[in-house]
Amino acid sequence: MLAVHLEGGLVSLREAPVPARPDGFALLRLLVGGICNTDLELQGGYYGFAGTPGHEFVAEVVETDTRSLIGKRVAGEINLACEQCDWCRRGLGRHCPNRTVLGIVRHPGAFEEFFTLPERNLHVLPEDLPLQRAVFLEPLAAACEILDQVPIPEGEAIAVLGDGKLGLLIAMLLQAHGYRVHQFGRHASKLAICARSGVAIERVDRGAALPAAEYDWVVDATGSAEGLRSAAVMARPRGTVILKSTIHGAVPIDTAPMIVNEITLVGSRCGRFEAALPWIGSPAIRLEEMVSARFPLADAPAAFARAAELGVLKVLMG
Amino acid sequence: MLAVHLEGGLVSLREAPVPARPDGFALLRLLVGGICNTDLELQGGYYGFAGTPGHEFVAEVVETDTRSLIGKRVAGEINLACEQCDWCRRGLGRHCPNRTVLGIVRHPGAFEEFFTLPERNLHVLPEDLPLQRAVFLEPLAAACEILDQVPIPEGEAIAVLGDGKLGLLIAMLLQAHGYRVHQFGRHASKLAICARSGVAIERVDRGAALPAAEYDWVVDATGSAEGLRSAAVMARPRGTVILKSTIHGAVPIDTAPMIVNEITLVGSRCGRFEAALPWIGSPAIRLEEMVSARFPLADAPAAFARAAELGVLKVLMG
Repeated sequence: MLAVHLEGGLVSLREAPVPARPDGFALLRLLVGGICNTDLELQGGYYGFAGTPGHEFVAEVVETDTRSLIGKRVAGEINLACEQCDWCRRGLGRHCPNRTVLGIVRHPGAFEEFFTLPERNLHVLPEDLPLQRAVFLEPLAAACEILDQVPIPEGEAIAVLGDGKLGLLIAMLLQAHGYRVHQFGRHASKLAICARSGVAIERVDRGAALPAAEYDWVVDATGSAEGLRSAAVMARPRGTVILKSTIHGAVPIDTAPMIVNEITLVGSRCGRFEAALPWIGSPAIRLEEMVSARFPLADAPAAFARAAELGVLKVLMG
Repeated sequence: MLAVHLEGGLVSLREAPVPARPDGFALLRLLVGGICNTDLELQGGYYGFAGTPGHEFVAEVVETDTRSLIGKRVAGEINLACEQCDWCRRGLGRHCPNRTVLGIVRHPGAFEEFFTLPERNLHVLPEDLPLQRAVFLEPLAAACEILDQVPIPEGEAIAVLGDGKLGLLIAMLLQAHGYRVHQFGRHASKLAICARSGVAIERVDRGAALPAAEYDWVVDATGSAEGLRSAAVMARPRGTVILKSTIHGAVPIDTAPMIVNEITLVGSRCGRFEAALPWIGSPAIRLEEMVSARFPLADAPAAFARAAELGVLKVLMG
């Protein structure tokens, strides 16, 4: 079978055997995969990754113990938890210290014709859900994680910084929940997608002043050190800043105003698919408009190159 | 009257007129003042301060509109709020954007024979409360602020980093609340005070490894960039780090583990005196043992010099 291989910054294709199916695992056939910023960061050297990437996918179940699952379209939780530790017992397998992570940490990813995941990680998708919407279930769950962690009162104003893929998903999801979302970004064409969903948008140039101490709730989805610093400035005293970027590296933060203004910073990562499933079909979240291109799996190098271009949103493969 | 003056890093004494008492203010006579790390930072140039410092005090009411207050011993909230804005209406005058702050921001401090504060800022102290305990009410309120902001469940283990004045107060206060406090610091003699109050102590050398991912609750009271980084490492996934240091400056923080582990950072500053009053007389909080020296106000330069020495805890004046 065909498998994408990522190593030393290079994306290549390999012939590989169809993987064996361990106990409790399902063998899956890729229908469509989505390239995430984390994949681009893995390409850039994050986690010292070498292997098959890919953690956003829709697949068909080919082989598994539960016969009723065979032939079904599924998405899947990307954390493979041990199910034994305290974290797993508390339903927080996403933080299991023994976990591997699909296409990220010690488990081959979804960018290959066939791959495996534990059956318990799978979520069967509605049959009428288009593939190009369904493939957003994993990042949409990451957006939903915000409200799982932080109970934001109804109707509040929320500033979302960043108009990348995750920033758009977050803005549309929060707006669909009834919050008053103000999104700040640099790209008129990306912001326009959210504007069509009722989000109040503001295009800002690099280095432009942002409103100071205006919001009780700020989400930073810029992925930049500058974004994180701006978010802390935009928060009102006693406000909350949710850090939703995949990676910032070591960011010099002036902690004095954070302490004087008693700001709360909340790190936030991937979320429960159950929270995202009720929203994946919602027309208020304009997923189709976020798809920039689709390539066959055999064109993975071109797909990765496209995904890294400025102004490009989601690139699909398969 | 005698007034301490701080400017360009130098502590001096001046003769000044007794201040006029604005409407709603009380004229106070200093009984005892405490030198806080913030005072030492003001001396070092923080806030570009020039004037009379001092915000930890016990005073006698000399003149005020409410006659029953005259002659009473009082402590006082240090934030002079406008009482008009949204923050003030929500009972959060400590965050009033129009506030001045006693001895810190545009209001002369308590290190002078007579000074003024709004009557509504005053808290009458129990008559049998020794001055050397009463003077800790302001920093004890800052320690209490932690539980006002973050509802830590009963009986939890809490790591406290730092064995300076605020670290000791926090450790003893949390232990007195029934939490299992583990305090990490560099100074055996300071840690010993908390050990006598039942706190589990651990002396650590600079650069020594601290337990990683061990605590759901970590308080950083080190005042150092290294302390803040250590605190983030000591927190378990989904854990909370409370930033209780007066100032860190721009600290390079690696936000990736904060996001992957979904850590919450909470900036925390000064607190409600009402929360501290029930604890100020508690023998479980060994305030007397935290007093290193007491100087007359006329010896303020020597008092500041002593307060800055390594290993010295609270220095009192008056």
